Amino acid sequence: ETIHETASSFGAKGIWGPEKTQTGVCRLTLSDLDKQVRDWFINETKQLGCSIKIDEAGSIFATYPGKDNSLPPTAIGSHLDTQPTGGRYDGVYGVLSGLEVLRTLKENQFVPNYPITVINWTNEEGARFPMSIMASSLWSEQVDKKTIYNLKSVTDSEPVTVEHELKRIGYLGDTKASYKHNPIAAHFEIHIEQGPILENEHKEIGIVTGVQAYAWYKVKVSGKASHTGTTPFSARSDALLAASKMIAKGNEIATKLGGLFSVGILELSPAVVNVIPSDVSFTMDARHVQDETLAQLVEEAKLEFTKISKESGKSISVEFDHIYTSNAVKFHPDCIKCVSDSATQLFGESKVRQITSGAGHDSCATSARVPTSMIFIPSRDGVSHNPEEYSTPEQVENGFHVLLHSVLQYDQL
Amino acid sequence: ETIHETASSFGAKGIWGPEKTQTGVCRLTLSDLDKQVRDWFINETKQLGCSIKIDEAGSIFATYPGKDNSLPPTAIGSHLDTQPTGGRYDGVYGVLSGLEVLRTLKENQFVPNYPITVINWTNEEGARFPMSIMASSLWSEQVDKKTIYNLKSVTDSEPVTVEHELKRIGYLGDTKASYKHNPIAAHFEIHIEQGPILENEHKEIGIVTGVQAYAWYKVKVSGKASHTGTTPFSARSDALLAASKMIAKGNEIATKLGGLFSVGILELSPAVVNVIPSDVSFTMDARHVQDETLAQLVEEAKLEFTKISKESGKSISVEFDHIYTSNAVKFHPDCIKCVSDSATQLFGESKVRQITSGAGHDSCATSARVPTSMIFIPSRDGVSHNPEEYSTPEQVENGFHVLLHSVLQYDQL
Ligand SMILES: NC(=O)NCCC(=O)O
Ligand SMILES: NC(=O)NCCC(=O)O
Repeated sequence: ETIHETASSFGAKGIWGPEKTQTGVCRLTLSDLDKQVRDWFINETKQLGCSIKIDEAGSIFATYPGKDNSLPPTAIGSHLDTQPTGGRYDGVYGVLSGLEVLRTLKENQFVPNYPITVINWTNEEGARFPMSIMASSLWSEQVDKKTIYNLKSVTDSEPVTVEHELKRIGYLGDTKASYKHNPIAAHFEIHIEQGPILENEHKEIGIVTGVQAYAWYKVKVSGKASHTGTTPFSARSDALLAASKMIAKGNEIATKLGGLFSVGILELSPAVVNVIPSDVSFTMDARHVQDETLAQLVEEAKLEFTKISKESGKSISVEFDHIYTSNAVKFHPDCIKCVSDSATQLFGESKVRQITSGAGHDSCATSARVPTSMIFIPSRDGVSHNPEEYSTPEQVENGFHVLLHSVLQYDQL
Repeated sequence: ETIHETASSFGAKGIWGPEKTQTGVCRLTLSDLDKQVRDWFINETKQLGCSIKIDEAGSIFATYPGKDNSLPPTAIGSHLDTQPTGGRYDGVYGVLSGLEVLRTLKENQFVPNYPITVINWTNEEGARFPMSIMASSLWSEQVDKKTIYNLKSVTDSEPVTVEHELKRIGYLGDTKASYKHNPIAAHFEIHIEQGPILENEHKEIGIVTGVQAYAWYKVKVSGKASHTGTTPFSARSDALLAASKMIAKGNEIATKLGGLFSVGILELSPAVVNVIPSDVSFTMDARHVQDETLAQLVEEAKLEFTKISKESGKSISVEFDHIYTSNAVKFHPDCIKCVSDSATQLFGESKVRQITSGAGHDSCATSARVPTSMIFIPSRDGVSHNPEEYSTPEQVENGFHVLLHSVLQYDQL
């Protein structure tokens, strides 16, 4: 219910069915809608007796007191921001499940041993400001404040900075964004799988043991523009033909190595029906569960693409600009055990499986500093970043139960 | 000299070298600059004693009188409009060589047997209003007036129609645009090759015997958007991977059949680094000297693309929208002979060759109604539709001599 209430109040967009719960959500980070859902979240958690901290990157820490408040809290974190064409579950589910844990404690007048904090990390999506997992990476001291403050929005007609928007919506907090100054004991995150594995295998819960490594590059192919009608094949330096062969080859290499290779963006010029493209640039998103094999995948792609460019005409060349690499993450055995025990107790061995996350999450950042693990629930058709993103109410509730039990088990531990 | 004078006065743009003759030209059809060059052209030809007709599509016929003016004139035609990133020679060279022929007659007080008309055909490029070879196709009655009048500009922020722009610049003439009402006896056109063949073979003149057929399609590949990190290859319907394989396959088919296949425009959505593209559309420009083989090329491409789409995931499909087909053109033996005799006399067998035009020209339209042929001169590196388009002053002059002799030989004939 809370998922659908917040979706309809704060950013419903992208209708895909007749029910009023069948829309997606567009709630870009640090937008007016993001401010509204943040205000609502603070109000809800305050009513439960939480104290609120807002850090320099706008991340909200709503802390529910335990018996001993001298130690750092156990954290449940994810994000309330969405993609421009986002669904109702990605990120939101994690924060609202944390809220539901606190509500459950309150209703049952259950006091944990140690405090529990629910975190809304700013800009996990990287859609408005082009750095995903932004605020949690600042907190883990893997990026610096200046870099994130100066990030410029790519979705506004007049670009603004992160710092400007934090101030504008009143969420530039005074808590230092650092695991040293604002520590947590552990980080649990529940999320939709965003892939088809659990659904295909009829599993209810994914015990996430880690996150695969990924590397992003911009590949630029330069050839020579010429007339499509008058230029024999032998005289061409066709940048798009070369890029097409690279895309097919990248797929082959990744298949061979058991990794992934995808091209999400491709741009070309001059973009005229009867002119052979001189310039093509495309993004390359390469993934593998092992850092070494990912490096090998990227290396082979570079070699093969260069070979293709040489074979494709005398004036063709290719360049690789590195955008971002996220190393493989292995979650903490203690946290994995809490999730595994809880899931198995609640649903039985046959309904759960260990899984490696294909996508990055805020937990990648926290995992660098504190014990961390994640819980996945099935995503219908594996769809995400799309209004049609869907998990059934039962799946949503199942995941919530695993989260609740995991956090209480960790609290005991 | 006239080429460079008109370029610097009417639309010089796109500097590529230190000399003031080293810029391209941007003179979109029916723009203010096009009006200026038209006014200049009329003034120049009037001074030579020409009478002027302007037809309903704005095409200008500047007619130099002969001894017997009761028969239709021999025409020299091409176009003064350019691509947005045009060079100095494409089109312009043909009209200004016609002017130079008239100047030469005048200077030498030579009166031809029959009148000679120099034609500036409106909108050959199809860059501002998306129909190439527009006004000459109206004249040959291969398209109708309503269609061309209603064409909307694609290069203006507020689109306007051809009719609007003809009126605005004062070039909506009262001569009916029809080969029946405004006849010519024959059509000669001199043009840069726009390809590398003459240059590579060290030839001075191409005797153009015809134009290859070409067909344009928009190919739409529909797949399913999903997350690049969480979607195994087996669960993908990657529209860009499928399109890439199609582009490589199209190239193979054309190579096998001795034709051409090119993709100049490719667009995709949603265009996010970590989202597999659901929709890709690309233009397909297929060419062959024979209509039947072109049809076979297109047929094989359709079959193979459909096969690729079926092999590339359960939710992939492909659609083909026909944009335009231009049938193969064979020029008239009489006109070809005039060009061939003139070129061989002036430069010798070893410096001339027969050639098929890879690109469409206004002569394709006139050829449907009256004896027509073309003369090509070499294009440096085969470059055209680009500021760096270049032919040497000697090449330009050589072509002019062949044109002059050809037209006078036809006049004798
Ligand atoms: N969960 C998610 O979509 N993260 C963005 C980074 C990635 O593509 O893995
Ligand atoms: N000459 C020329 O570029 N014509 C346009 C039509 C074509 O692409 O052949």
